Amino acid sequence: MSPSPYWLRDNCPCAECRDPRSGQKLFRIGDLPDGLAVLESEEDADGLRVVWSDGHRSAYPADFLDAAGDDGDGRTEQGKRLWVAADFARGLPEAEWSAYLASTEERIAVLAAIRRSGFALLRGVPAVEGQVLDVARSFGYVRETNYGELFDVRVEPDPTNLAFTSTAIAPHTDNPYRDPVPTVQLLHCLHSEAVGGDSGLVDGFRAAALLREESPEDFAVLTRTPVPFVYRDRQTELRAERPLIDVDGRGRIREVRFNNRSIATLRGLTDRELDAFYAAYRRFAAITLRPELQLTFRLAPGDCVVFDNTRLLHARTAFEQEGRRHLQGCYADLDSLASQLAVLERRAAALDTLEQLFEGEGAGEYLGEAVTMAQHMLQAGALARAAGAPDHLVAAALLHDVGHFHGSGLKLMQGEDNRHSHTGADWLARWFGPAVTEPVRLHVAAKRYLCATEPGYRERLSEASEFTLQVQGGPMTGAEAERFAAHPGAQDAVAVRRWDEQAKDPAMETPPFARFRPILARLMG
Amino acid sequence: MSPSPYWLRDNCPCAECRDPRSGQKLFRIGDLPDGLAVLESEEDADGLRVVWSDGHRSAYPADFLDAAGDDGDGRTEQGKRLWVAADFARGLPEAEWSAYLASTEERIAVLAAIRRSGFALLRGVPAVEGQVLDVARSFGYVRETNYGELFDVRVEPDPTNLAFTSTAIAPHTDNPYRDPVPTVQLLHCLHSEAVGGDSGLVDGFRAAALLREESPEDFAVLTRTPVPFVYRDRQTELRAERPLIDVDGRGRIREVRFNNRSIATLRGLTDRELDAFYAAYRRFAAITLRPELQLTFRLAPGDCVVFDNTRLLHARTAFEQEGRRHLQGCYADLDSLASQLAVLERRAAALDTLEQLFEGEGAGEYLGEAVTMAQHMLQAGALARAAGAPDHLVAAALLHDVGHFHGSGLKLMQGEDNRHSHTGADWLARWFGPAVTEPVRLHVAAKRYLCATEPGYRERLSEASEFTLQVQGGPMTGAEAERFAAHPGAQDAVAVRRWDEQAKDPAMETPPFARFRPILARLMG
Repeated sequence: MSPSPYWLRDNCPCAECRDPRSGQKLFRIGDLPDGLAVLESEEDADGLRVVWSDGHRSAYPADFLDAAGDDGDGRTEQGKRLWVAADFARGLPEAEWSAYLASTEERIAVLAAIRRSGFALLRGVPAVEGQVLDVARSFGYVRETNYGELFDVRVEPDPTNLAFTSTAIAPHTDNPYRDPVPTVQLLHCLHSEAVGGDSGLVDGFRAAALLREESPEDFAVLTRTPVPFVYRDRQTELRAERPLIDVDGRGRIREVRFNNRSIATLRGLTDRELDAFYAAYRRFAAITLRPELQLTFRLAPGDCVVFDNTRLLHARTAFEQEGRRHLQGCYADLDSLASQLAVLERRAAALDTLEQLFEGEGAGEYLGEAVTMAQHMLQAGALARAAGAPDHLVAAALLHDVGHFHGSGLKLMQGEDNRHSHTGADWLARWFGPAVTEPVRLHVAAKRYLCATEPGYRERLSEASEFTLQVQGGPMTGAEAERFAAHPGAQDAVAVRRWDEQAKDPAMETPPFARFRPILARLMG
Repeated sequence: MSPSPYWLRDNCPCAECRDPRSGQKLFRIGDLPDGLAVLESEEDADGLRVVWSDGHRSAYPADFLDAAGDDGDGRTEQGKRLWVAADFARGLPEAEWSAYLASTEERIAVLAAIRRSGFALLRGVPAVEGQVLDVARSFGYVRETNYGELFDVRVEPDPTNLAFTSTAIAPHTDNPYRDPVPTVQLLHCLHSEAVGGDSGLVDGFRAAALLREESPEDFAVLTRTPVPFVYRDRQTELRAERPLIDVDGRGRIREVRFNNRSIATLRGLTDRELDAFYAAYRRFAAITLRPELQLTFRLAPGDCVVFDNTRLLHARTAFEQEGRRHLQGCYADLDSLASQLAVLERRAAALDTLEQLFEGEGAGEYLGEAVTMAQHMLQAGALARAAGAPDHLVAAALLHDVGHFHGSGLKLMQGEDNRHSHTGADWLARWFGPAVTEPVRLHVAAKRYLCATEPGYRERLSEASEFTLQVQGGPMTGAEAERFAAHPGAQDAVAVRRWDEQAKDPAMETPPFARFRPILARLMG
């Protein structure tokens, strides 16, 4: 193997190179010496170990070199579903607002649809003013603009923008004169009694891909010509020069900006370049209007459409001014949306992993007790719940021995302190706050504390627990016990400890892990 | 002449093609017929007139074809001052916060410095928590992130980011894992008693330009390699793939993203590509550390540095933990900053134009009265002020005859209604709200109203005013007068009219235009 040495070294995961808490690198790329080379390397099932020419040593996990190229940042055409209207013949990506709020799965589905198809529809969002801001805040941050934190789309007496008239509006992206452009748009319907005023969406990535296919030279012209977009009113003078189609360094479509209403005068190009640009622009515009690309639907009060404003073009048909039509809109950004989606997926995966551990490894022997490890922990959780403990203590009781998983429990019985309370707490800290992790971290200390301070406690320990007490350091000294009692988390740790001791009853009915999943999901939030 | 026909037609300024209020185009580019051509064209001092093959007619202003290429959107290297530290040997671009708040000129200077040099320093910003948000709101909108609306830079017990430790931090841009990245950063110093902790800035555009000069191939590698930036904590999982140096379609440097701490593992490249990337990256990193590029200064309490986070790299030296060091920061965006700057410049230019009109054309005869046009208007403004009128009426009185400028006053005396009240109000509406423009618009109507309803009013008119009354339609009929009186702006218009009538006194002392400038500047806000 001969991977690029600076690449390999830049990814060294050791605590000297990378802050264990933040994962951020602790060195500057220029700190690495010139001519850096691998002196020795060894690869086996445990991973790759390297000795470097500057004496540093690195150890990489087993799959490091072979890890698949990832999907990028999810902002290019790669991994997306480029669509035509007929692809939604069986229905739009949509969810009830109440289900979206209550269920992680629904929320993941909605956010994943926005990422993959560029939009999703939420139904039953209370048709009250300002509610659209809550929808945006459910996955990110509202981006304020000159139109305000939110804007009203209805007929205005003295409109500063054609959106605020009853005119038909052709497919376009919003705020092209902003850079950074707002990357997510939300439109929430409050009233829709007017005749007309239907909504339309067009997949701008699909349109751009069609242009690339049918006329590669036109596509290239649009990716390399900066186009000035301008918006002016009494308080505002915005100008951005960006191409109609933006591609990344590998040529993948990354952003579409399309809005004839606000294209200003292109300057500094030859007539020949202008002819080429306008020919390409007109061809692209014609593609965006092809009937098979128009996804048309009608927003009813309570519907809120959320879409990717760097990809989808939106439109509306003209409407009659008699009936009332009122939408409220706001902007947000895709980066926070993607972060929220990744965190929810990561949490769901963590719960799956826990469930698998309880059902797999957890079925094994629990340090010589009469219950399995899973039974023990489930019982501890159930006891905490029966005692009316708050959620974070139920979770701590349920998960207190999670550090025993991965076969490490065995080492403890062989007389080696596996520090399972710390291992467990550190692992849990990737998902839970200190209210859950600290009682787990301190539950062994609590045992040593109770043995030192509570008459008769030590005598009630099970045989196995008495044995591990020795390995764990024995009862606390007076000074240790005092320090422990002063710790703000001591009470919680002692409570968990008591449920721990009681949770070894082969006769007790043991709830399944699934019973605790909603509590854990809430605590991860 | 043979300009590109679609380009020319897309810029037709007629009211059919372009909404006169919003300036937005009213047609779709695809609405123009194929094979569009110029049938006839005629160019003279008044401009260019075109008859199109589809029958449409366009008229362009005189300078349309020859207008210079503009400066783009001010986001690329073009038109910027790329600097080294010595360029600021005589001082940093800075202003007192109080002066920035009070003076349009100071504000323009600060915002222009951020645009041109990438940063400016505000001094004497009250060292109280949250104040940095007010600084951001003075030119744009706060961009909230996972760090909050604002963030505290000080030593934290359990830091999620190296910024919150006392470690030295090499020059970098912030939030590279966000897309859109926050384009403006603010750092406001509340306490700086610690030894060390100085601030540094490096012009990333200059560094990139040096790389392009010294090693064009390395520069090209960095512009075309998407680099994954990642940030993860319990609530966050951000990922953006962007090049270290981004150029626009014409090859101009447009954005620098530089932060070794959060570069994740590059995947999907060959070892050769990785070698090339790392060689270029290390060369660029070395340039950013050149001593001549490091602008170092110390923030004192009350200092707030505002900088372009798409261009400048910022750094800080290590500091001792004993002394207190506390900065508060937040993010905002360049587009709103540039808009604010353009609007302030546009307003200042409008005031300059007005001042020139008063001093130039205004010195001319006022329709046969014994005062000049400027004296007349200045007197009207002074009378309004002396009467204790609110600012908007002082302004309306001062500006009521602005529609006479540009020689159009003459036409009125030749018996042709120049509708000067409407011309003036429409022109003023580019800068002032209806409180100022509507009394101007109605001041001729008010004269016709008073002649109809107030006994003796008509008899008091000057000879010239009696003459123009005929051209303007004579006294109102009873029905007209009733309609006028019901108009919400009628009282203000009548008030302006009365000052108008009185302001023809050659003996009255006339204040200079400059006396009114601050009032006008405030009303434009």
